[in-house]
Amino acid sequence: MKNDLLIRACRRQPTERTPVWMMRQAGRYMEEYRQVRAKVPFMTLCKTPELAAEVSLQPYQILGVDGVIMFSDILIPVEAMGMAVQLTEKGPELPDPIRTQEQIDKLIIPDPTEHTPYTLETIRLLRKELDGAAPLIGFAGAPWTLAAYMVEGGGSKNYAHIKGMANREPKMLASLLEKIADTITIYLNAQIEAGAQVVQLFDTWAGDLSPKDYERFALPYVQRIVEGLRREQAPVILYMNGCGDRLEKMLKSGADVLSIDWRIDLAEAKKRVGSAVALQGNVDPCILLGPREGVEQAVRETLIKGGSGHILNLGHGILPSTPVENAKAFVDAAKNFVREPEPITYVI
Amino acid sequence: MKNDLLIRACRRQPTERTPVWMMRQAGRYMEEYRQVRAKVPFMTLCKTPELAAEVSLQPYQILGVDGVIMFSDILIPVEAMGMAVQLTEKGPELPDPIRTQEQIDKLIIPDPTEHTPYTLETIRLLRKELDGAAPLIGFAGAPWTLAAYMVEGGGSKNYAHIKGMANREPKMLASLLEKIADTITIYLNAQIEAGAQVVQLFDTWAGDLSPKDYERFALPYVQRIVEGLRREQAPVILYMNGCGDRLEKMLKSGADVLSIDWRIDLAEAKKRVGSAVALQGNVDPCILLGPREGVEQAVRETLIKGGSGHILNLGHGILPSTPVENAKAFVDAAKNFVREPEPITYVI
Repeated sequence: MKNDLLIRACRRQPTERTPVWMMRQAGRYMEEYRQVRAKVPFMTLCKTPELAAEVSLQPYQILGVDGVIMFSDILIPVEAMGMAVQLTEKGPELPDPIRTQEQIDKLIIPDPTEHTPYTLETIRLLRKELDGAAPLIGFAGAPWTLAAYMVEGGGSKNYAHIKGMANREPKMLASLLEKIADTITIYLNAQIEAGAQVVQLFDTWAGDLSPKDYERFALPYVQRIVEGLRREQAPVILYMNGCGDRLEKMLKSGADVLSIDWRIDLAEAKKRVGSAVALQGNVDPCILLGPREGVEQAVRETLIKGGSGHILNLGHGILPSTPVENAKAFVDAAKNFVREPEPITYVI
Repeated sequence: MKNDLLIRACRRQPTERTPVWMMRQAGRYMEEYRQVRAKVPFMTLCKTPELAAEVSLQPYQILGVDGVIMFSDILIPVEAMGMAVQLTEKGPELPDPIRTQEQIDKLIIPDPTEHTPYTLETIRLLRKELDGAAPLIGFAGAPWTLAAYMVEGGGSKNYAHIKGMANREPKMLASLLEKIADTITIYLNAQIEAGAQVVQLFDTWAGDLSPKDYERFALPYVQRIVEGLRREQAPVILYMNGCGDRLEKMLKSGADVLSIDWRIDLAEAKKRVGSAVALQGNVDPCILLGPREGVEQAVRETLIKGGSGHILNLGHGILPSTPVENAKAFVDAAKNFVREPEPITYVI
């Protein structure tokens, strides 16, 4: 492998410099992506391995990131479980939201080889084309976040339906979360088997839960997944938006890396997690709207705070309105940064 | 004054029991509100003192809350500054969002007596009708939150426009925030003069800022307002959504009370702020969707954690789909709760 910085950083092994990539790095802010996307609907792009691999590679070719995340959508396995999923301009719509035990019982735990073969084929294609030039990142949504889409029927402002279910029918919700956890464990292991070298679990919306509900409805299902993964083959990154007040709880997930949002100071986060995990993040995506000097300054500050055991990333996905030259500046600034030597501790 | 529990709790003075009220307590979840609202558009309701006073009093009459918040909207002073504001089904729309210094220069610092007399008249009416039965709460939006509406042109998912302005034109944004801060200082002092006995400053969206940007673009303007308020006449409550990782920064605001959201544990919050301020919150509004036992349990747990110097409230506004009997259960559970005696410290 020519560049394994990302994998080493995930495992908290020494690296010459901090690796860098961006969540949603294959996306609309890039002209080359828009050209491919203009030809096909979003879901077709996810399900066509040649096209998915093509757009996955664009940020590597154009920006030079240290990790390539496969292009897909977190709702792909949800559709495979048996739910109708429509991706509209306004975001995902699930026209038959889950509201009854009967609906949950009807959901299947899909076999990735049979139900989502395109995802695995995308991974195999990418591994072949990358040929060790950079690690390949697989991903999936975590149970709470996926359940939120499934119960709300799409994105949500206050999660009234799923939280209503949590309060009124906690056992019913648990049965849904278990089914999703099993689906995702199998799905991610299939990705690892196909060639994913790092996997990221997106529990994007779990930061909205109260601490007590996080421990009831999100954390146990993430733990269940992490326990079931082939972690010796691929380290696991856990992302949450709004994680500032629950890093200590996220530590219990068993993930190798915590991917944090921009609302928390990275130096403080590092103090809180100690040497238990690596950290990924956490530049505010809005900083990449410009100017360039601001991007470079944010990268420098973040790299200084992050030190070793850190992967530079944004605190959330890159915004569609980001100028591509600022995305480039983000990556370049990380690669050009000269790290201060870590203080040496003498043992006499 | 027959019931001054709220005022005493704000000032951390002893109370027989914890006072209770709810953000957005005069609202759509209540049949009596919907009847009034059916007759007039939202903005007309805000600007008609008799109707605004009528709906403000409903939660007091029906639920028996310990504080009455005047019915209004945080965008009322924004409109008075000279911006067009439309309140639609989808939320507020500001068709001419602020993008240039010229637009900022044109905004006025309105005189509340001249530009928003209805707000002051609502307060006077309410004080008269309440006749000391419960304290009257005035309110306003904080500069960052109002500027977000003004620059984005409405609600926003990622605040790309205002954060873009923060990065590219920080001085321009500062001039807008200053103008809003001065507007709100005058506006809240006019409310206090008219009879508001407590004022709440809603910096709802400031929790989205990075810690560094919070200290640049939100906190200084809140400090400026709090310094300018007649706090000896009315204690100040500062609310922020997503405040878990920045309570220590909020302490610097000078507010008497920090109103916190449900993502943070109240006992932990109490430890962090010590005896510097009172705390308000922080039940997840979704718990009020039911069942009733869950509401009662959440109230008990929250009251135990809150102890003295605590005002029971939700972590955000009550949801329109809340059954009114659960709102009633929330208030009743608080009133019926028997507080454990505080440990007595003997000084020998």
